Amino acid sequence: MRMVDLIHKKREGGSLTRAEIEYIIQGYTRGEIPDYQMSAFAMTVFFKGMNKQEIADFTNAIVHSGETIDLSPIKGIKVDKHSTGGVGDKVSLIIIPLVAAVGVPVAKMSGRGLGHTGGTIDKLESIEGFRTELSREEFIHNVNTYKMAIAGQSANLTPADKKLYALRDVTDTVDSIPLIASSVMSKKIASGADCIVLDVKVGSGAFMKSLAQAKELAQTMVEIGKSLNRKTIAVITDMSQPLGYEIGNANEVKEAITVLQGKGPEDLTVVALTIASYMTILGEVYKDFDQAYRELERVIKSGQAFAKLKELVQIQGGNPEVIDHPDKLPQAKNHIEVKAWQSGYVESINAEAIGITAMLLGAGRKKKGDLIDHSAGITILKKIGDEVKAGEPICILHTNMEECGEAEQMIKNAFSFSKVKPPQIKYVYEVI
Amino acid sequence: MRMVDLIHKKREGGSLTRAEIEYIIQGYTRGEIPDYQMSAFAMTVFFKGMNKQEIADFTNAIVHSGETIDLSPIKGIKVDKHSTGGVGDKVSLIIIPLVAAVGVPVAKMSGRGLGHTGGTIDKLESIEGFRTELSREEFIHNVNTYKMAIAGQSANLTPADKKLYALRDVTDTVDSIPLIASSVMSKKIASGADCIVLDVKVGSGAFMKSLAQAKELAQTMVEIGKSLNRKTIAVITDMSQPLGYEIGNANEVKEAITVLQGKGPEDLTVVALTIASYMTILGEVYKDFDQAYRELERVIKSGQAFAKLKELVQIQGGNPEVIDHPDKLPQAKNHIEVKAWQSGYVESINAEAIGITAMLLGAGRKKKGDLIDHSAGITILKKIGDEVKAGEPICILHTNMEECGEAEQMIKNAFSFSKVKPPQIKYVYEVI
Repeated sequence: MRMVDLIHKKREGGSLTRAEIEYIIQGYTRGEIPDYQMSAFAMTVFFKGMNKQEIADFTNAIVHSGETIDLSPIKGIKVDKHSTGGVGDKVSLIIIPLVAAVGVPVAKMSGRGLGHTGGTIDKLESIEGFRTELSREEFIHNVNTYKMAIAGQSANLTPADKKLYALRDVTDTVDSIPLIASSVMSKKIASGADCIVLDVKVGSGAFMKSLAQAKELAQTMVEIGKSLNRKTIAVITDMSQPLGYEIGNANEVKEAITVLQGKGPEDLTVVALTIASYMTILGEVYKDFDQAYRELERVIKSGQAFAKLKELVQIQGGNPEVIDHPDKLPQAKNHIEVKAWQSGYVESINAEAIGITAMLLGAGRKKKGDLIDHSAGITILKKIGDEVKAGEPICILHTNMEECGEAEQMIKNAFSFSKVKPPQIKYVYEVI
Repeated sequence: MRMVDLIHKKREGGSLTRAEIEYIIQGYTRGEIPDYQMSAFAMTVFFKGMNKQEIADFTNAIVHSGETIDLSPIKGIKVDKHSTGGVGDKVSLIIIPLVAAVGVPVAKMSGRGLGHTGGTIDKLESIEGFRTELSREEFIHNVNTYKMAIAGQSANLTPADKKLYALRDVTDTVDSIPLIASSVMSKKIASGADCIVLDVKVGSGAFMKSLAQAKELAQTMVEIGKSLNRKTIAVITDMSQPLGYEIGNANEVKEAITVLQGKGPEDLTVVALTIASYMTILGEVYKDFDQAYRELERVIKSGQAFAKLKELVQIQGGNPEVIDHPDKLPQAKNHIEVKAWQSGYVESINAEAIGITAMLLGAGRKKKGDLIDHSAGITILKKIGDEVKAGEPICILHTNMEECGEAEQMIKNAFSFSKVKPPQIKYVYEVI
């Protein structure tokens, strides 16, 4: 087999066999297939796509390019959750205790990565003492005992994906649905999940800008799950503005706590309950969505979900008092109000711009190894459809930086106002 | 400027500016743009094409990626000729003395390269003593004095093309018309030609398999010439079977001699006279094609063209007696007849397979630096439309190899026979 012939086959619209796909992924992982052939291949896939079988084979080959995690010592159906990424997305912080509270084992492994804010483990590390470096034994023990654990991921999972992703980033081959879908699903499968709930975000703060694209991505990932025997449900949710009001690390933990206390913002609560409901259905605790949603609402109302978060913090070495008194979370020195420059209704918020601003304030990593300022972030005060008067604050920037004129200007550019009230935005668009 | 953004612009159907194209070619030549970005770019060009202006800018940027040859010390209009490559293509051997004989200066520079047989200079080197390493002074002196010189090309011409061609070869981005056209034209322009006649081959032994593709390539190259102020004519000629009867080096020289003696095969004579006619028109010796063709026929008939070939051999150090007595050219030890296995008419000959067989027999280079056996090659005895009886020889393999059963089998596979006489093949399809 020669890589150039496989590129040709794909370029001419042919379908690659499993053996051919394994040859590509194994050869690329071992460095036998050079980057310049892989990038030509990725561009060919961008233009010609891959069929269901090819995508499943591609995903499976990536799964087997490195280590895989064996979660079989954990009793029950292990349901994982993945978000395609958004701004203010603290859903994982909510669903871990919520789903665990009803008995679904949550064995969450999470990377640090780059982004507008830290990942879930960075966010949790804003709680004093919270440890995310668990041994395999402790991790499995905790899930079996408490139904939950979250740990930084250290195994050499899906090295082909890591290498390919870095290459795609510099060769304009990121936005290919077969490549995105196989990247996401390979990581989840290598992490040992039995079932997967995908939160596919759509809108200005998401990778998928249109509902049609988001549906195609969701459909593709669900089909990969089906082919590789992982029950998979995809929920398409709104990211036309940040989710909830808080963007950052400590402040996102604070907002997650409010949801678990039953007093969180409506959009975040609905999205978290929807994702959690499907997780409990796949975990075979509830039969249908309405029952699951109702029961999970009850679990929040009863205080069990909140108690479960305190338990998570306690078993992973954190100070549970912080959960009762979120003002003990790290606080930034400066809180700068950004004010509306005209009256009207918030018409749109460029979520991506808000996310980048949060990163500039210190909440996220520009490059690998950057330190995160857990106290930095943004509180949105007015969201789409809210009425504002000129001079009224629309955002608060939390930062330890002395000078953040650039951030203020970026926030202003991210908001637009209109005279008429814009239509209500849906929180959840579709379930696939 | 970032390469990833330029790939994106092209991928989304945009047109690149001259500055962007220069950034790409200069950056790639200097090694600042890595192969993996260039291959993704080349694949994008394969799918999205380039417009006339982009192709002209791309060609010009390649011309200026290295040295260019200044032919201004040569008097008159320098007309170069290029063939897109075929099997048995010894047209250059014929046109150099033919065109020089009527006063058009031919300053031919030629590479060795890879292929079924050697290049024009390899073929000429089968003549005892023939030197192709001329100093710049000798080269220019010869063209000014005798109207002709041929030399191996040693300058660092179009390094961007060399690098890009090697990359395209392993990333399945060879057959992109903008990339082929800019590659060919950049080399000709860097070599200093004022005018260019292109012999675009079409058929089983050519790179362009269909007339539509060949026309598109021809059109594209003629437009590059127009944009960069080089008068360019493209002649589309047949390569559905080898040109003439001889494939090799010494035997191709022998066949070229027969054409210059007015007793060559019809297809080769017509193609060579057609190319030569357009060269003399661009060289402003004749006004129209009919006049040019008639005069060049006369130059052959009168013996002037043949005498000019002897002169070329003499001035470049070769033994001119070889031209009078071609049996003095190198001879292979073995001459193996391949016989027809059925009676009928030759229906088709896979020219590419014939070419590869000639290479296997020793006539061409598989890889850079391989030695060529000037005596090796193939004589075709029956061409398309010829009647054959089972057992009659259709080919003779000339070789110094002891065992060539594989070559014999390949020749057999390359021929097909039919009961009915196939229609006559055109020699020249179109002039653009």
